[in-house]
Amino acid sequence: MRHHKIVVALGGNALEENGEKPTAENQWKTIRKAADHLAEISAAGHEIAIVHGNGPQIGRIALASEAAADQVPVMPFDVCGAMSQGYIGYHIQQAMKEALAEKKLERIPVVSLITQVVVDKTDPAFQNPVKPIGSFCSREEAERLEQERGYIMKEDAGRGYRRVVPSPRPREIVEFETLRRLWDSTIVILCGGGGIPVVREKEGSFRGIAAVIDKDLAASLTARSIGADMLMILTQVDYAAIRFGTPDQEDLHHITCEQAKKYKEEGHFAAGSMEPKIQAAIEFAESAPGRRAVITSLEKAGQALDGEIGTWIEG
Amino acid sequence: MRHHKIVVALGGNALEENGEKPTAENQWKTIRKAADHLAEISAAGHEIAIVHGNGPQIGRIALASEAAADQVPVMPFDVCGAMSQGYIGYHIQQAMKEALAEKKLERIPVVSLITQVVVDKTDPAFQNPVKPIGSFCSREEAERLEQERGYIMKEDAGRGYRRVVPSPRPREIVEFETLRRLWDSTIVILCGGGGIPVVREKEGSFRGIAAVIDKDLAASLTARSIGADMLMILTQVDYAAIRFGTPDQEDLHHITCEQAKKYKEEGHFAAGSMEPKIQAAIEFAESAPGRRAVITSLEKAGQALDGEIGTWIEG
Repeated sequence: MRHHKIVVALGGNALEENGEKPTAENQWKTIRKAADHLAEISAAGHEIAIVHGNGPQIGRIALASEAAADQVPVMPFDVCGAMSQGYIGYHIQQAMKEALAEKKLERIPVVSLITQVVVDKTDPAFQNPVKPIGSFCSREEAERLEQERGYIMKEDAGRGYRRVVPSPRPREIVEFETLRRLWDSTIVILCGGGGIPVVREKEGSFRGIAAVIDKDLAASLTARSIGADMLMILTQVDYAAIRFGTPDQEDLHHITCEQAKKYKEEGHFAAGSMEPKIQAAIEFAESAPGRRAVITSLEKAGQALDGEIGTWIEG
Repeated sequence: MRHHKIVVALGGNALEENGEKPTAENQWKTIRKAADHLAEISAAGHEIAIVHGNGPQIGRIALASEAAADQVPVMPFDVCGAMSQGYIGYHIQQAMKEALAEKKLERIPVVSLITQVVVDKTDPAFQNPVKPIGSFCSREEAERLEQERGYIMKEDAGRGYRRVVPSPRPREIVEFETLRRLWDSTIVILCGGGGIPVVREKEGSFRGIAAVIDKDLAASLTARSIGADMLMILTQVDYAAIRFGTPDQEDLHHITCEQAKKYKEEGHFAAGSMEPKIQAAIEFAESAPGRRAVITSLEKAGQALDGEIGTWIEG
């Protein structure tokens, strides 16, 4: 098997187990298990870069900052994102190093980069913020937050009010040059949570904004920018499926970009869940000949490499 | 002037101004000013790596985590350190990029690495934790924290009880290889807050601990490891001084390591303030011929390079 350059997108299940208390200790244990699967890929001689989510973590960091508002200034959302990159990146690099050492690969460097990702000020997502963050609150509290903090609050299906932020498309990785320099020697963890969203003010000048970038789309951008030949999106299921959750559910094995687009338009994939993964896979696979994307479970990451398992999208 | 390889240690005054509200916005503005001084050094053709403190920031992150304890699990201190590296590193890299762009140096990459620093389990500092973190509390609260969290709490000069952690010596930078690969092309921000303190369990296996590593000693270790020829410790004063604060105060200009050690033993330098800076400077300057350390103010960083300003320690 020839060696691949792979960008891996790690879903939330690689960081936290459902139903477990979200302590740092539990996160570390879950990431440590994920690291075994990723180390398998390294052990097979492939070069990998890792992009991870941060949804629950950034929510808790923002919540803690709010809880201390009478004692210390509340941190803006871009800073919460930077903190989550530190928190999660630290655990992934520590866990990966240990998993690699068990395979006698302790010499492979592993590092997390604090990463800013540029979005367009004119992205239509800014007209319609839909990504809910943090906890629910009352109408009165929502009005206070709108006035005092400038948050946009939306009523959520009778459960109360929640802050929403836009989810614009990732355009460019500010720290891309560092990935390029490290990629062939080092396991680089970057674009955590999709990257800290920034807008470009002028050449070399960026400002953080309150937004959430989809981590699968950021992983796809990373893979295209660096010239990877494989994008591996790891989640909770072995396959993407059409007619998901019905008696006629059909797992997808090898499909073309055209087929994937058709199924997407037909509404087979859940918004905010499988849909952005399919979109990220399509964008990568159609960006250049020979590029393939696979969506599969974390546990099958190693086995998926031979093409037998997972939903493969190419051509 | 020949070009130097410089490790810069940024003091707290480069991150926050005295008396200003510690908002993220104010931190950014203060760091932006500091970045102008550092960009001057880059513009003169020198290679720099940046180590920064995190005292007030990690204190506030830990405080916010405690404030939300009834809603989300409290984060351990090593994780708070990782978060502070994300927070501060993000602002430094954004500010440096902008300061460089104003000098038409926007092509120089700037990146923050999440950095673990190994300490010895047998370090005597573990027998005597002295570094206070977080806010004061009552005796009852202190007893509760000792029992529930395993914290070590100490009475502090009649002002109440505070958590204390050990401050062991930095021994090794886990992510050193990445610094080595990037150093000649990139401004690398690393070892924030002295680094996330970890102990080595076995080869390739590290665990975070509740401790604080002195950032000047971590900068000195960085400079020695990478083979820098200059360690620049930036603080609030232009010079270190003997008989500081007395009518006989005398600023130090050029001194040898021997002189520096003598003054240190005579107690001229304040513990936890100028003393670790002098110690860091001595350790670097005596590690190999030709290595020089300078202690000066952030504002004089550019001018100090010609040797006219600052306390220089060498030989």
